[in-house]
Amino acid sequence: MRDTRSFLRSLFDAAISSAQPSRCVAPFLPQEPPRGRFIVLGAGKASAAMAKAVEDHWDGPLEGLVVTRYGYNVPCERIEIVEAAHPVPDDQGLLAARRMMDYVSDLSEDDEILCLISGGGSALLSLPLDGITLEEKQAVNKALLACGATITEMNCLRRHLSAVKGGRLAAACYPAKLTTLLISDVPGDNPMDIASGPTVADPTTRDDALEIVQRYKLDLPASVMAALESSKSESLKPGDPKLSRCEAHIVAAPQLALEAAAKVARDAGVTTHILGDSLEGEASDVGTIMAGLARQIVTKGQPFEKPCLLLSGGETTVTLKGDGRGGRNVEFLLSLAVGLNGLEGVHALAGDTDGVDGVEEIAGAIATPDTIKRAFDKGMNPRKELANNNGHGFFEALGDSVVTGPTMTNVNDFRAILIE
Amino acid sequence: MRDTRSFLRSLFDAAISSAQPSRCVAPFLPQEPPRGRFIVLGAGKASAAMAKAVEDHWDGPLEGLVVTRYGYNVPCERIEIVEAAHPVPDDQGLLAARRMMDYVSDLSEDDEILCLISGGGSALLSLPLDGITLEEKQAVNKALLACGATITEMNCLRRHLSAVKGGRLAAACYPAKLTTLLISDVPGDNPMDIASGPTVADPTTRDDALEIVQRYKLDLPASVMAALESSKSESLKPGDPKLSRCEAHIVAAPQLALEAAAKVARDAGVTTHILGDSLEGEASDVGTIMAGLARQIVTKGQPFEKPCLLLSGGETTVTLKGDGRGGRNVEFLLSLAVGLNGLEGVHALAGDTDGVDGVEEIAGAIATPDTIKRAFDKGMNPRKELANNNGHGFFEALGDSVVTGPTMTNVNDFRAILIE
Repeated sequence: MRDTRSFLRSLFDAAISSAQPSRCVAPFLPQEPPRGRFIVLGAGKASAAMAKAVEDHWDGPLEGLVVTRYGYNVPCERIEIVEAAHPVPDDQGLLAARRMMDYVSDLSEDDEILCLISGGGSALLSLPLDGITLEEKQAVNKALLACGATITEMNCLRRHLSAVKGGRLAAACYPAKLTTLLISDVPGDNPMDIASGPTVADPTTRDDALEIVQRYKLDLPASVMAALESSKSESLKPGDPKLSRCEAHIVAAPQLALEAAAKVARDAGVTTHILGDSLEGEASDVGTIMAGLARQIVTKGQPFEKPCLLLSGGETTVTLKGDGRGGRNVEFLLSLAVGLNGLEGVHALAGDTDGVDGVEEIAGAIATPDTIKRAFDKGMNPRKELANNNGHGFFEALGDSVVTGPTMTNVNDFRAILIE
Repeated sequence: MRDTRSFLRSLFDAAISSAQPSRCVAPFLPQEPPRGRFIVLGAGKASAAMAKAVEDHWDGPLEGLVVTRYGYNVPCERIEIVEAAHPVPDDQGLLAARRMMDYVSDLSEDDEILCLISGGGSALLSLPLDGITLEEKQAVNKALLACGATITEMNCLRRHLSAVKGGRLAAACYPAKLTTLLISDVPGDNPMDIASGPTVADPTTRDDALEIVQRYKLDLPASVMAALESSKSESLKPGDPKLSRCEAHIVAAPQLALEAAAKVARDAGVTTHILGDSLEGEASDVGTIMAGLARQIVTKGQPFEKPCLLLSGGETTVTLKGDGRGGRNVEFLLSLAVGLNGLEGVHALAGDTDGVDGVEEIAGAIATPDTIKRAFDKGMNPRKELANNNGHGFFEALGDSVVTGPTMTNVNDFRAILIE
């Protein structure tokens, strides 16, 4: 490889580009203006950027209401953007959800709605069932997080305690035509799990939700149990006539981003393997394991022959032990470099596709076979830097940070390991 | 697969069998008795069992001295077995090393030595250079562990501070013929890293050792620095005439065990991928990551098409947070099951090849697609059991423990994931 660094960077750029609203929203705009109104709705961290992409590519009549996270606003001219709290919902999210339900309460079949959903939408569009307060719903979330329920189980319960999720927003839009575009940041890319599926059918039932309560012996407020046991908790089921004019498209997702990067690599003649689009785990352990895998490839040609490229996505976690400047991706990368310990022929890039790994505007970094040696030459002890969660400090000192600026999208982490 | 459980168990049995001294030592015994003496030496946790294998398969004249860990003794008739402390060396290990060096100090070229090395031999055969006390050497080990040095670096320093390692035992045997048989438990299977290579050449130098001291700013006792800076610290180099009659064979190793299991699987028509023979990391995170990989295979046919079998070895770690009954392998397996959350078609076995995962005589366990459901049916919360490090309690309650009894060998962990 003539220039490995720029090759790795081109893969990262391809992954981000595939997920950028300006690129992935436009293909799904209507061919011609509807006979009635054209309304854009939306909720999520990337949804203001998605709305802006609609404004940029649509000349016809346009109106709408989109809720995004504080600080994630992208000014639009014709679509109203409001901001609310995430991950713990606030009154602004509640207000936005109420306004959105009112907005679509009286549409005709000549009207068309484009609904722009992205990660974070569940908290940003929060409207508990009648009889449940926002505080009580927050208590439910807290209990769910503490009991060890899976994200699938949490979302099932959320869909049955909401007046907007589980297809209810779509039902409110009926008989208008509704197209939902989703940027996925959840494992499995199931539309009902992205923002708890306000516009898609929910195959799970109230009985499933009650079973989860029982399974984890959840102690929920009486009002919540009363609502859950009443018929109003039932979400919209597949085949419901009120969903007959709905369709949904995943327009950006971790897997699509990995495939976009894989295409660039394969076009350059590099054999590419996608290990997973939703690999989770402690970032430093993911680095250690990937180092073991790379070593097996280099020393034994198993399970893949070199040269090859390994791609993976998903969202790792970091358990803070030190006080360094870090992020999931640089933590992974530093651990990988420590595990490889100068193994010849292995280069890697890891970055957050939203451009911010941790809290700084550094997306990630690049590791090379001489990363460890260069670090010692600069007086840094790589294992100690790792123990101090100082990935950004470490790679910045080496001049190996990767900076993209805000990307206006998020399809989680991107990891590329090139083995030559 | 008609009986997935017994298939997985047959793979584990094949892995263990490949590493059993009774099977892997015999092929390397001399074709006929030497003209002089035939002496067996050895150090390591499996070395008494290796000595017993020699006695069982050798009719000619035989004598020798082998040091193993307290509790790892296997009674022999003609070879003397002594016990010493591991991982922190004690006087018995010191005494054994002295006796061994004396034993071989006056051999002729008609004599033949078989040296049986296995994991733990470094501590069990401990003889510091003249002028260094055992306590001082222990202080060096402590400093090395604290500074973040790699195992490769630690071994380099150990070889240059020892009167028996770094090929010195082999040099003492000269001009006798010396064959070393090694059971490897170290990543890379490099003979110089197994028990710090008492009978093999050491390509690293005293200068390398001094550089490590400098690199990590180690504050070592003056006597240790004096010894390290003197010429006596230099170990035996490749090409040294005193090593001209030596050969070494890895007779059992994680990779060989995985290959043995892979052969059984492939003979049964199952496509098999070896991910790595030395995967490390926190056991529960390895489980989470493998779950992500298995999910990608099931849902997307990447990076492997199903059906397939994934094999891996190495030694994970467990950071204790609870007070359950656990071990590395059941911790991994429970985490895998939680991560898979009932994913259809995925069965797995994880076990310690020494037959003891953690502290109990349970080697490991088997997970099935209905593991999580069966656990809830029995009133267990899988995530809480995992958080309590209660892998053995969990799988025992399900009747899914795997018990082998003591295997008299150790090639680390064995993990098999079958995806149908």
